[in-house]
Amino acid sequence: MLKICIVGSSGHFGYVLKGLDERCKITGISPGTPEEDMSKLEKALLELNITSKRYEDWRRMLDEEKPDILVINTVFSLNGKILLEALERGVHSFVEKPIATTFEDLERIKDTYWKVKDRVFFAAMFGIRYRSHFLTAKRLADEGATGEIRLVNTQKSYKLGKRPDFYKKRETFGGTIPWVGIHAIDWIHWIVGKRFLSVYATHSRRHNLDHGELETTALCHFTLEDEIFASLTIDYLRPHGAPTHDDDRMRIVGTKGIVEVINERVFLTDEKGHREVPLVEKGQIFEDFLREIRGQGKCMVTPEDSILTTEVALKARLSADTGRIVQI
Amino acid sequence: MLKICIVGSSGHFGYVLKGLDERCKITGISPGTPEEDMSKLEKALLELNITSKRYEDWRRMLDEEKPDILVINTVFSLNGKILLEALERGVHSFVEKPIATTFEDLERIKDTYWKVKDRVFFAAMFGIRYRSHFLTAKRLADEGATGEIRLVNTQKSYKLGKRPDFYKKRETFGGTIPWVGIHAIDWIHWIVGKRFLSVYATHSRRHNLDHGELETTALCHFTLEDEIFASLTIDYLRPHGAPTHDDDRMRIVGTKGIVEVINERVFLTDEKGHREVPLVEKGQIFEDFLREIRGQGKCMVTPEDSILTTEVALKARLSADTGRIVQI
Repeated sequence: MLKICIVGSSGHFGYVLKGLDERCKITGISPGTPEEDMSKLEKALLELNITSKRYEDWRRMLDEEKPDILVINTVFSLNGKILLEALERGVHSFVEKPIATTFEDLERIKDTYWKVKDRVFFAAMFGIRYRSHFLTAKRLADEGATGEIRLVNTQKSYKLGKRPDFYKKRETFGGTIPWVGIHAIDWIHWIVGKRFLSVYATHSRRHNLDHGELETTALCHFTLEDEIFASLTIDYLRPHGAPTHDDDRMRIVGTKGIVEVINERVFLTDEKGHREVPLVEKGQIFEDFLREIRGQGKCMVTPEDSILTTEVALKARLSADTGRIVQI
Repeated sequence: MLKICIVGSSGHFGYVLKGLDERCKITGISPGTPEEDMSKLEKALLELNITSKRYEDWRRMLDEEKPDILVINTVFSLNGKILLEALERGVHSFVEKPIATTFEDLERIKDTYWKVKDRVFFAAMFGIRYRSHFLTAKRLADEGATGEIRLVNTQKSYKLGKRPDFYKKRETFGGTIPWVGIHAIDWIHWIVGKRFLSVYATHSRRHNLDHGELETTALCHFTLEDEIFASLTIDYLRPHGAPTHDDDRMRIVGTKGIVEVINERVFLTDEKGHREVPLVEKGQIFEDFLREIRGQGKCMVTPEDSILTTEVALKARLSADTGRIVQI
């Protein structure tokens, strides 16, 4: 039986609740800060008839519960600090992305992970990879449908709504590029599989409807090795009348074909024409994570992926903050 | 009766042939260089039963025909030089975009235009503006459907096929950003109506199928005033099996709604939901040009638009050539 503890209620703990099985148990929950609103997680646990001990201090929870797995999804700027402590304690971690909101935290995580990597695993919550349309695009690219990938265009567009107060401060939120844009950085990294060399990015806080320092729009321009380019457009301006919360897109342009993810569907254009591609079955990130922990397989999202995409996201944010091209 | 002469057969003279009326006449044609293949234009004129005198030297044609309008669509690097002479001679010009492939030529055109602007008109061949879907998007934006525009994403994707030899040299072709990308620069300028401040761009010649110096892929990142950002992705990798030559797209993200041009259709997402918008009637750029020449109206594409978009395109190319952010 794997013992799981959860810190925070501010991220995608839903992946955990959907991926749980009878061989694991949520034994403890705790906020990341005294102020954190835990009601979402508590309500979700109640609905699933899961009872677990509520702590007020996550360190005490770690001391007392000694979990096998720590789920970390609190105020974004704390996720990395808690991950660092979990790694130091040898606790496998399923952690909200970005895995750090500062370069300093990221460096510490890298250093520590390097020391414990043979016995501790962690993965960032890149659950979007496991959606049918993204898995289908990945499979098409891997099977050679695009030929050599030369250009990738990605999009993240979200409804803003009314966000918790910690979104309003860069110090606690981390920025829209690391919070929202990182998913698309992950798709690019995952599907292209080439080294990121540099990034140029811009972002703007205007029209953020009283969300303080939250950036409403951002644009990133990545250069990968072999003169592969990737664009990423991000906005929190998706109208509330839109049929879905998000409008995630990816267009992969290669020497043989173009694969496109749009409206949760996948299209392929090649020498045979333009057509929709049947979707492969969806996956589930926490189930995949559990397989790795149990030694039954490899999790598709690795610690190295989680570190790299966070680094790229923080460098994109640095570029946007400074107006400079940043080497990666 | 307006007398029209045409230099070259290497661009969009088709706009002229489709926009002709009984009050104008094509009296002379000439190649831009001795080597230019004139067969496309000659064939098109023959099909329309238009007979016009063939010259071998466009300057002699100007001397002898003294046209009211010069149509310029020869080897791209010559278009600006011929435009300059036409302006100096006081001849209205309908000229292929970009209106120059070097900053030097563009500066000369600006200087000369400034002196003759009260009596000479010219417009670049931004005929895509007049397609129903782009006119519809423009009208929606003008009517306030998007609210304040914050972000624009544009796409130009073309089949490469086999291009004439002059495409293979930067010196004669000018580059993929100025030749293909400039259309999207024009859409951004036309619809957003704000000042361009800077550009960062990259481009690559890899996999251009023996097209020498022609860039196969490019990505541009524009910053406009008021922290408005615009992306432009360009490729010559559209597969030959694709149903159309081009895949032009534009997504306009504003504070009230998102307007999207895709597959020659237009969609609006706002607080009322997501829906397709009926298209307005298409226009015709040369008819519009003739209206201006005849004093019957204003042409939607102005000399100032033509100069500005060329400048932005050349600065994007400069950015891609040098790896620097270029101020506009």
